[in-house]
Amino acid sequence: MGPLKGQMLWLQVESGVWKATVGTPEEYSLLSASGSQPLKEGFSRLPKVVLPELASSVTGTVQDGKTYLSIPLSKEEQLYGFGLNFKTVHQRGKILNLHVDHYGGSDNGRTHAPVPFYISSQGYGILINSARYLTVYAGSGITKDSPDAEKAKDRNTDKTWTSQPYSDAVSVLVPASGVEIYLFAGPTPMDVVRRYNLLCGGGTLPPRWGLGFTQRTPVLYTAEQVEKEVDEFERHGYPLDFIGLEPGWQSKAYPCTLEWDSNRYPDPGSFVQRLLDKGVRINLWTNPYISPDSQIYKDMYPVSGSHTVWGGIVPDLVTEKARRLWQDKLMQEHISIGVGGYKIDEVDGYDNWLWPDIATFPSGISAEQIRQTYGMLTQRITNDIFRKQNRRSYGLVRASNAGACSFPYVLYNDYYDHRDFITALINSGFCGVLWTPEVRGTKSAEEWLRRLQSVVFSPMAMIDSWASAVKPWTFPEVASLVKEYALLRMQLIPYLYTEFARYHFDGIPPFRAMNLEPGFNLKEAISQELGSQNLEENPYLEVVKKEIKDQYMVGEYLLVAPMFTGQTSREVVLTKGNWYDFYTGEYVGNGEKIIVTPGLDRIPVFVKDGAVIPMMEPMLHAPKSGQIVNMEIRHYGKANGHYRLYDDDGETFDYEKGLYSWRDIKIERQKNGKWKGSISKIESGKPNSIGKVTWVFMTKD
Amino acid sequence: MGPLKGQMLWLQVESGVWKATVGTPEEYSLLSASGSQPLKEGFSRLPKVVLPELASSVTGTVQDGKTYLSIPLSKEEQLYGFGLNFKTVHQRGKILNLHVDHYGGSDNGRTHAPVPFYISSQGYGILINSARYLTVYAGSGITKDSPDAEKAKDRNTDKTWTSQPYSDAVSVLVPASGVEIYLFAGPTPMDVVRRYNLLCGGGTLPPRWGLGFTQRTPVLYTAEQVEKEVDEFERHGYPLDFIGLEPGWQSKAYPCTLEWDSNRYPDPGSFVQRLLDKGVRINLWTNPYISPDSQIYKDMYPVSGSHTVWGGIVPDLVTEKARRLWQDKLMQEHISIGVGGYKIDEVDGYDNWLWPDIATFPSGISAEQIRQTYGMLTQRITNDIFRKQNRRSYGLVRASNAGACSFPYVLYNDYYDHRDFITALINSGFCGVLWTPEVRGTKSAEEWLRRLQSVVFSPMAMIDSWASAVKPWTFPEVASLVKEYALLRMQLIPYLYTEFARYHFDGIPPFRAMNLEPGFNLKEAISQELGSQNLEENPYLEVVKKEIKDQYMVGEYLLVAPMFTGQTSREVVLTKGNWYDFYTGEYVGNGEKIIVTPGLDRIPVFVKDGAVIPMMEPMLHAPKSGQIVNMEIRHYGKANGHYRLYDDDGETFDYEKGLYSWRDIKIERQKNGKWKGSISKIESGKPNSIGKVTWVFMTKD
Repeated sequence: MGPLKGQMLWLQVESGVWKATVGTPEEYSLLSASGSQPLKEGFSRLPKVVLPELASSVTGTVQDGKTYLSIPLSKEEQLYGFGLNFKTVHQRGKILNLHVDHYGGSDNGRTHAPVPFYISSQGYGILINSARYLTVYAGSGITKDSPDAEKAKDRNTDKTWTSQPYSDAVSVLVPASGVEIYLFAGPTPMDVVRRYNLLCGGGTLPPRWGLGFTQRTPVLYTAEQVEKEVDEFERHGYPLDFIGLEPGWQSKAYPCTLEWDSNRYPDPGSFVQRLLDKGVRINLWTNPYISPDSQIYKDMYPVSGSHTVWGGIVPDLVTEKARRLWQDKLMQEHISIGVGGYKIDEVDGYDNWLWPDIATFPSGISAEQIRQTYGMLTQRITNDIFRKQNRRSYGLVRASNAGACSFPYVLYNDYYDHRDFITALINSGFCGVLWTPEVRGTKSAEEWLRRLQSVVFSPMAMIDSWASAVKPWTFPEVASLVKEYALLRMQLIPYLYTEFARYHFDGIPPFRAMNLEPGFNLKEAISQELGSQNLEENPYLEVVKKEIKDQYMVGEYLLVAPMFTGQTSREVVLTKGNWYDFYTGEYVGNGEKIIVTPGLDRIPVFVKDGAVIPMMEPMLHAPKSGQIVNMEIRHYGKANGHYRLYDDDGETFDYEKGLYSWRDIKIERQKNGKWKGSISKIESGKPNSIGKVTWVFMTKD
Repeated sequence: MGPLKGQMLWLQVESGVWKATVGTPEEYSLLSASGSQPLKEGFSRLPKVVLPELASSVTGTVQDGKTYLSIPLSKEEQLYGFGLNFKTVHQRGKILNLHVDHYGGSDNGRTHAPVPFYISSQGYGILINSARYLTVYAGSGITKDSPDAEKAKDRNTDKTWTSQPYSDAVSVLVPASGVEIYLFAGPTPMDVVRRYNLLCGGGTLPPRWGLGFTQRTPVLYTAEQVEKEVDEFERHGYPLDFIGLEPGWQSKAYPCTLEWDSNRYPDPGSFVQRLLDKGVRINLWTNPYISPDSQIYKDMYPVSGSHTVWGGIVPDLVTEKARRLWQDKLMQEHISIGVGGYKIDEVDGYDNWLWPDIATFPSGISAEQIRQTYGMLTQRITNDIFRKQNRRSYGLVRASNAGACSFPYVLYNDYYDHRDFITALINSGFCGVLWTPEVRGTKSAEEWLRRLQSVVFSPMAMIDSWASAVKPWTFPEVASLVKEYALLRMQLIPYLYTEFARYHFDGIPPFRAMNLEPGFNLKEAISQELGSQNLEENPYLEVVKKEIKDQYMVGEYLLVAPMFTGQTSREVVLTKGNWYDFYTGEYVGNGEKIIVTPGLDRIPVFVKDGAVIPMMEPMLHAPKSGQIVNMEIRHYGKANGHYRLYDDDGETFDYEKGLYSWRDIKIERQKNGKWKGSISKIESGKPNSIGKVTWVFMTKD
């Protein structure tokens, strides 16, 4: 028996979820740092399954102070996940060093959410619950005793020689002398994702206003300028639910005092309240590094790390004292006066200004582990404050990891590549995080509109003008189209909110890859082409991978295929089943590749047969708790429709106590050939926000 | 006392070299893997020095199973080294993960020779003798109790805010619970480099033929084609000392049998001998991965690693048995019939086809440590065979590390960026390795000539036509200029050979940075410019570094400033002292920046005042052992000249037994104002290769 032959004992921890340990796992792990508890009742709605067969072939051993894991792969299998990748959806063959960092332009494991979780196309998933930097060989490397290994070939004479022969395993190096590993059953990849999200506490359910429109203001804006901007949104008729203040709200920033600048914000309490009265919440930018000028610096000093960030100390958020100091400060300065959320910056990288791996922390947790979990800790701790207030929050954060899917945060960065932002959105659904392809300054009206059209089909519909001072109406030639899409976003809130409820209760990611759809053809999704045959350009004749990574699902029914600057047409791959145009209801195809040529006014959106899309009237702010809104419920295609529309107060955690409802919507063809829609009555005592319903049957016979 | 406060006990191991240990250093280290012994007598020619003051401020502690080192930095200090970097000479501020790999386009520590040795501009050096992947913060990261730390600034209002405040230490994370660290005194950076090279055994002294011209042939060339090519070199009048066979000489390759292909090479013994008779040696490409079709596969199997490379097994070259099997095979098949050296490929990376870090090896040495030392082990083991034959070899290898400077190998890769190749050449001198900016196919005659002009001023003057089948005369419009430079290379052999002897005996790198020259202005060498002030392009307002990284010294006297395709003029920075044009002897400047506008026919080369450049007559092959050649000894400038010309048999290791000479050359102005040169007599019993001497005084009064 060689050293890789350490078989494992699998213990079922939830329905369809098993855990095994190798060596002595560390106490501080991703799941322990997140503090998440499984959403147990969610598992009851998943298929009953048995331990996947491959469990008996997973091996783990401890050697050289490290844990070596090996998980078998079969020939046709494909892998998804391994965190927030920006350029690739299909991960088989990759070598990744999972490391929380800003995204640097290549999918090498350094990213904002390097979640050590992957899903196999064969319907199982693996989570390695370690807060260390893991090295993953996602189907790379072949043992010499492998019965499946390709035979050696003679490159001199054999044209089929390849620099990357088939590998039959995922190998993982955990730099610690033990680890916990979780195995998730399917049967489908979607079921795997659901089990993973439920294990991590279920997906976040944002407040309804979180799904409205948001604008981030320039760095040095004053209270007066912010209020003026809010008024301008109202006057121009653009929706706005929350507005972001960038560093200038603080008396000092990079590092931060967490205190209001008394010149730019002389009376924060009244300022926040005046905006709340207008239906607009405040979101505050910050980073966690504490300025020597902050009132909490002295108390925080002994519970901070050995190294500074821009001269600020780094709170050791593993210690109770640091958590409490930070929470108390945020509560006292911001949350108590009505601030609705945060944008937590610089918890990811860059290495050049974060603490080095030789830094030490009073908790005794290593710099590496703190780095892997710091963004998650900031989410957990701020979430706890809002939970205590029984107010939901929704904000932005630059780093996350396994276990964080129940925290109300959306990831973002400075990378700003439109195409890669869409690939990140696709991958976010594989790893229990949310991602916004935010809109900043652009070079043209076309780019502005194209980006705006995508961001309204994302978890946070945001314009970030911190540096460029752009407004939705900055490009007059497309300002009315921008307004149309911003209002479409508002109309879609009932649908999006329901899909987020499914994220919460059932673990179904609201934004996700085509690969999680039934009837998606794997062979079409990923293929290989010969690379350059010029040996001086490509000495090892590496192949080029082609994959579908620019279209995605929004909830149950909508397929979104963004257009990028310069494009006038694009391919869209439809899964099996009839598909319809979102705007016209017309049939577009079934299980095929279509070419679309929309004008600048349209982002291609397609709808499944039998889809039910509940839309509210276009409003400038999301409905408040208890506010009744009129609905247009659309039906697409020829199949009968059925949807369960979620409702609750939209602002508190009372849904956790059962104060929510699922209203049954049915759309059926009558005997007279006409369509008819119906919606179930609201149960007494349950919240309701639905007023008059108009039924719209989009597909004409 | 915090955990970083572990002071060290420094023990002097050689003159000006001290060693300290932290924790329990591992037995398997870079120096132990290299097997190098210090060249003790070389230290006697270096200044006597005391332990540098900073020794008492170096700290090391073991925590979390890792060793954390901290070495102080003062404000104006600059750092060089950290292995074979391609884009930067000045390393302060960098974060590197030192990892043997192919060079991937950024100086992040992954390179062919990630040597954990650096030199301070203040005249000391540090070697971390670990075969682990080291993370180096080369002046990045600031402890919160640092007395030198910059104060936190408010980015909102302070224009001097920087994302990278001054750091006062080099920090190193060694992923092992102990390490040896060496401290080298100066007083100058050059003295530091010399002590380092001498500790590692002194630099390699190639055979004289190794400094001649070499051509590598296309992959599938037959014996007949190779012989024809050798004849063509002769007929066209281009020099050729050794010729390289690429994979096609083997019966199977990638992985390798190490056996001759009986079709292409039916009679290897006679083939090699016929070429030797023409004065041309054979160099054989190989990689160490053994094909199942090799006769040694079965015996090697039990002493190979757990994982394959392209279906070949990976000999565990730490084990005596694998070394012996490999040595015996190379001796029997190649070296015994006269093969002169190897090109050892694919001992660096890529990760995608080398063994993963979870691989295991029968020696018990980890995959990580094997990776860091594998190229060095192949050098050591092949070198041992040639030493046993008392024949010097000179070859190519794709990976090296600390301790390898006495091995007769030159590094190379597929990266092929002319500018970056020159920067690598500069950096090679900081880390005890040699580098060739080899010439392959090019897009134009201009590029061809420009690359050719640089490679003749490098450790190996090579054209590599493995993929492109180029010959020196491929571009007829520059063929005669190519010949002129190839012959200039031959003429320079006495000078180059002497400078290599100084590498061997005194540790002075023959190819090196301006920064090691006296009178080089550090402020000119490296400066910072503001980066983009557009926050959307450069959100953290990172600065841009500008540095001198495109000119270098060849030996004591020559400054080479290559021209790159498209350039018609360039800047050259001259150190203090008078400088002269190599071709004309005319004065060009002193301690200043000059602009040169050479034609395509000239690579700018400048010569120090008082320089003595011994040049032999232009020949097509380097002189054989005992062959006498006529010399032209050039003098440049207005100062008297003095040079010690090295001589030995040029082929064996007898110089280690004292069979060599240093002949004193003096060039002095006579009372009559005329220059006169003289050369000391050869001691009796010492080898001599110098015939008639012609004195040429290049600088006219």
